[in-house]
Amino acid sequence: MSKLLGAPLSVVNVGLRSFADTINQCGGTAAQVEWAPPASGERAAGSALAKLVNHPLVEAANAKAVERLLAAQPRLSGIGVAREVLPRMGRRTILHAGPPIEWGRMCGPMRGAIVGAILFEGWARSARAAQAMAARGGIEFAPCHHHSAVGPMAGIISPSMPVWIVKNAAHGNLAYSNLNEGLGKVLRFGANGPEVIARLKWMQKTLAPTLRAGLERLGELELKPLMAQALHMGDEVHNRNAAASALLIKRLVPALLKSGAPAADVAAVIEFIAANDHFFLNISMAACKSMLDAAHGVAGSSLVTVMARNGVDFGVRVSGLGRRWFSTPAPVVDGLYFAGYSKADAAPDLGDSAITETAGVGGFAMAAAPAIVKFVGGSAQDALANTLAMTHITLRRNSAFTLPALDFAGTPCGIDARRVVDTGILPVINTGIAHKAPGVGQIGAGATRAPLACFAQALVALARSLKA
Amino acid sequence: MSKLLGAPLSVVNVGLRSFADTINQCGGTAAQVEWAPPASGERAAGSALAKLVNHPLVEAANAKAVERLLAAQPRLSGIGVAREVLPRMGRRTILHAGPPIEWGRMCGPMRGAIVGAILFEGWARSARAAQAMAARGGIEFAPCHHHSAVGPMAGIISPSMPVWIVKNAAHGNLAYSNLNEGLGKVLRFGANGPEVIARLKWMQKTLAPTLRAGLERLGELELKPLMAQALHMGDEVHNRNAAASALLIKRLVPALLKSGAPAADVAAVIEFIAANDHFFLNISMAACKSMLDAAHGVAGSSLVTVMARNGVDFGVRVSGLGRRWFSTPAPVVDGLYFAGYSKADAAPDLGDSAITETAGVGGFAMAAAPAIVKFVGGSAQDALANTLAMTHITLRRNSAFTLPALDFAGTPCGIDARRVVDTGILPVINTGIAHKAPGVGQIGAGATRAPLACFAQALVALARSLKA
Repeated sequence: MSKLLGAPLSVVNVGLRSFADTINQCGGTAAQVEWAPPASGERAAGSALAKLVNHPLVEAANAKAVERLLAAQPRLSGIGVAREVLPRMGRRTILHAGPPIEWGRMCGPMRGAIVGAILFEGWARSARAAQAMAARGGIEFAPCHHHSAVGPMAGIISPSMPVWIVKNAAHGNLAYSNLNEGLGKVLRFGANGPEVIARLKWMQKTLAPTLRAGLERLGELELKPLMAQALHMGDEVHNRNAAASALLIKRLVPALLKSGAPAADVAAVIEFIAANDHFFLNISMAACKSMLDAAHGVAGSSLVTVMARNGVDFGVRVSGLGRRWFSTPAPVVDGLYFAGYSKADAAPDLGDSAITETAGVGGFAMAAAPAIVKFVGGSAQDALANTLAMTHITLRRNSAFTLPALDFAGTPCGIDARRVVDTGILPVINTGIAHKAPGVGQIGAGATRAPLACFAQALVALARSLKA
Repeated sequence: MSKLLGAPLSVVNVGLRSFADTINQCGGTAAQVEWAPPASGERAAGSALAKLVNHPLVEAANAKAVERLLAAQPRLSGIGVAREVLPRMGRRTILHAGPPIEWGRMCGPMRGAIVGAILFEGWARSARAAQAMAARGGIEFAPCHHHSAVGPMAGIISPSMPVWIVKNAAHGNLAYSNLNEGLGKVLRFGANGPEVIARLKWMQKTLAPTLRAGLERLGELELKPLMAQALHMGDEVHNRNAAASALLIKRLVPALLKSGAPAADVAAVIEFIAANDHFFLNISMAACKSMLDAAHGVAGSSLVTVMARNGVDFGVRVSGLGRRWFSTPAPVVDGLYFAGYSKADAAPDLGDSAITETAGVGGFAMAAAPAIVKFVGGSAQDALANTLAMTHITLRRNSAFTLPALDFAGTPCGIDARRVVDTGILPVINTGIAHKAPGVGQIGAGATRAPLACFAQALVALARSLKA
């Protein structure tokens, strides 16, 4: 021991940096290794983790669940009307993004969008009346996710709205999403003025029937190859869908022209889609939902199958834990704000679009989309680093979605809640940022992180479920 | 001196590696610096280089020339018929790719394509008769480049063919290219069977008039922003034009639908374009030609304004050297060959498409297009390295064409023949590879290099021109 202390010391400090700082300040040299205890030292989650790591039942369940995720074959199979095609959708139901939430707790953009949906449905004649109807319990609210659906930002789907229908041909399940309205004053950011309602009516009366006619002519459209191609064209199919939207147009146009739909409608529809680089987003989301729903419900699995935000709470669901949500307050996104806006103006994280990251694209595929850093912040190196970091918390690489900049490695796919809690590496989510007041619209974008607490709660529940 | 030799030596060896090898073999340590004399030690070029480096006239001329290149504003302004719009196009003229060449020296694919063009024009009734006509001097041959035009691979343009018209709004000059036929049995690879001629007739009778009607409705289309956007979507706008072609469709379709062109024709045209990810290539080439022609003709400038290959010779032109070509045998491309083919089957490097690299895209912008390495070979790192290497032989970065993976640095732009000769770094060209027999088609692709000798010859001529 005296020999050890007599010789020059090389110190490696693991964890709290202040120990290393002291040695460095005294003229010694200490290398610092970043480390924090699992679950940020939270005892219950740590114990659950200890029980679940390498648990043979969990391992087997995860292998089964993630294989279903990887095997999914999402196909765009049509457009329907929400009340006709969504499972168990009530006559006065409005679906919203994220985990369950009552009217009284909803954020501004979500309330604004609900008022817009009530006006669109004709259930009230003024915004004031619509608000009163919602407040007095005249509407049944439910998460899109409870109806095999997803919606970006406020994620509002009311019974008369058209919805995309995506079929997972490998598993036979269906998933749904609303249609993208474009940017600016739009329902999903809480706007509900006459031009918003008029656009929704046009989407219902012209866009949807025209697209339906085109899709009928085209037949089912394989979405995985299209998304894979878009990843080779600079999209991550969450906040960047420029290539995917253009590829969709390429496929749709000849079918639209032969569909028998009126030429003026076809021209208007194509112009509408061509003007909106985010048009494919909702299809991408429905595709991801169809992939993940197939992986849901495997007893014992710690695979995360939903990450979603309602602008107040951030919630996750886990394959082995049925219909339960594990929620915590949604963070306000530290992103790039448009000129004139700041974090003080922002609603907390909002929307079902994190379904893309849950499926292993979006922020997990940022290495495919270096140009997105102009939108969400950071450098091209950060984009690569985000993708690489996600390999530590996922179960597989998805060979169907390859990343040219990483020499065609697959995207990290299938979040394991155990690994999130164990490493403290939080799932990255590329997201738009809504103004907290209804109807102002998008005020920024950023790469944010899912909060640890959801995953920690889920692990505790999973450990308990294995006891029983 | 004895003190120096007594102490341990650190050796840096510059140039021939064998000196360092000897020291290393004897137990010493020598670091190797790669270096070769300018112009590979060729005396005349070396002397010319010595005279031209930092020559104030050359510097001023290059500054002027490259500013014209950077200031160019190429716009797609229409479609015309070659004999009506190309400057000085004779009645029995056929234009071809690369520097001037007579029938007797032409490669197989070029001969095959010329036979096809003669059949298309109706100047002969059989391939045999067409060949005889060409051989006996019945056709006037000239490079596309002599008529402000460019064509990929064989680059054949005959008088009745439709051509894209690109206007450089900044300089007022026009440039032209033929229309892309797609892949497989096509004229530009030397095929001339009935299906090839029938497709050319359809392009003349249906494709071109329909597109013309659409363009008239659309108005002039700014090409630089479209190409810049494509660079953010994984294209390098030479061998990868998937995004640019899709973006073109997005812009064209609404205009086509409102143009009054028959709906069946519009549908056929869109389907034709949508099936061909290379459709934009010829427009990209004409845009680059319009940019470079504006930079041509500045006395004293060593800016390279043309690199082109005819399948036998590789030729360059330099801004300060008028209509002269500096040519050397074209290399056979060491690329990725399709199954069943090898270098032994390949025609030497062919086509005017290196105009894209001359303008600072294509191989110079490979950092934008990591997915292209699956087509031309190498890794994503090689793609970045190619772009970075080209900064050593170019005069500027083009801030209009930014590269997300390099944190939005501009593409290296404006090849300085002096720097090529000085550094020995040869311009990289992403290219398709044609079978040496006419009509077999594409048998591979690769990233090849322009031969040094062209640039060395040009320097000697430029040095002489300054004497006079």
